[in-house]
Amino acid sequence: MRAFLVVGNRTTTAPFNLNDLPGAGRMDVLCRCVAQALFISHGIRKDVEVYLVLLGEPDPPKTILIRGSEVRYMAPDERNIAGIIRKALGVKAGKEWRKSSPGVYVARRCLTEVLDSTSCKIVYLREDGEDIRCIAPDLENCLFVLGDHLGLAENDENEVLKRAWRVVRVAPISLQADQCIVVVHSELDRVRFDRVSRP
Amino acid sequence: MRAFLVVGNRTTTAPFNLNDLPGAGRMDVLCRCVAQALFISHGIRKDVEVYLVLLGEPDPPKTILIRGSEVRYMAPDERNIAGIIRKALGVKAGKEWRKSSPGVYVARRCLTEVLDSTSCKIVYLREDGEDIRCIAPDLENCLFVLGDHLGLAENDENEVLKRAWRVVRVAPISLQADQCIVVVHSELDRVRFDRVSRP
Repeated sequence: MRAFLVVGNRTTTAPFNLNDLPGAGRMDVLCRCVAQALFISHGIRKDVEVYLVLLGEPDPPKTILIRGSEVRYMAPDERNIAGIIRKALGVKAGKEWRKSSPGVYVARRCLTEVLDSTSCKIVYLREDGEDIRCIAPDLENCLFVLGDHLGLAENDENEVLKRAWRVVRVAPISLQADQCIVVVHSELDRVRFDRVSRP
Repeated sequence: MRAFLVVGNRTTTAPFNLNDLPGAGRMDVLCRCVAQALFISHGIRKDVEVYLVLLGEPDPPKTILIRGSEVRYMAPDERNIAGIIRKALGVKAGKEWRKSSPGVYVARRCLTEVLDSTSCKIVYLREDGEDIRCIAPDLENCLFVLGDHLGLAENDENEVLKRAWRVVRVAPISLQADQCIVVVHSELDRVRFDRVSRP
């Protein structure tokens, strides 16, 4: 299992205009993260979960959970994913997960509540961490935590660091969140493939 | 310099509806390729060029060239990039490049004309090629050729293979075109960084 958690620092927590995703607190960034976490060529990664922790107005916090094993009718374009998220934001959010469409759930949970409920090892992706390529074989069953274009606020980062098993960097330069997800998959796919192909 | 060429087998060659990028012959795929080729966190890769070879109706072929060194006012969301492409498709295309916005050009050129005009080494990205990780240090000044979700038509593939310096795979599984671009950048960034950081 691989899980990704992306914090949308200003991402809207109410239904929004599909024609202006950047204006919805950079919902476009979150949509790209979902696409890159879940999709491969002509298919969906069934062993992936994505958490979007949305902290923007008017009704924060809300977290959306998307399970690759259950998702139906999702395409990788931003507008399609945004439509699915918008539907989730129209559901009344409580402490428990409520399903808004197949494989898509919403709850009124903050970052620490999501972190404390996972059984995965928590890996914080930050530019000064250890190189993912050196520890990729150890990164099965991890929840990878990323900020959006604003990174993580100091208090959120402290909460992640308290719980983090490792702090890891994916590249020698600073990438966008969705690109970090592609690189994580790339490194872990190679590890998995090497294990399968070796006798 | 790094260059990417993506073939949009059915991608529209006339202005299109920004609210339905998949319906414009999977213009969404091409937009994601542009975003992943050009953008990093809070910046644009100035040493990158992207060619979109559009083969869909009603007016094929057209090629759009985007130069990272000249681009202005571009954001990484699909709709923004689609708007810039739509503007280019509204310009009357001739054999020579015509500028439609800063760093964005359009011409009536087919795949082979673009391939024959490059000074880069041509690298075809295909799932059965040699592993990029084994030859990444040799991949400076290359034009990486990719198909969209449909791959390349047989005759187009033959033309690419005639001109290809190498055939390279980026991953042990089949990725989407934009994900392939992220992995190429990732591998080459590591090579570049290793060269810089070693005495």
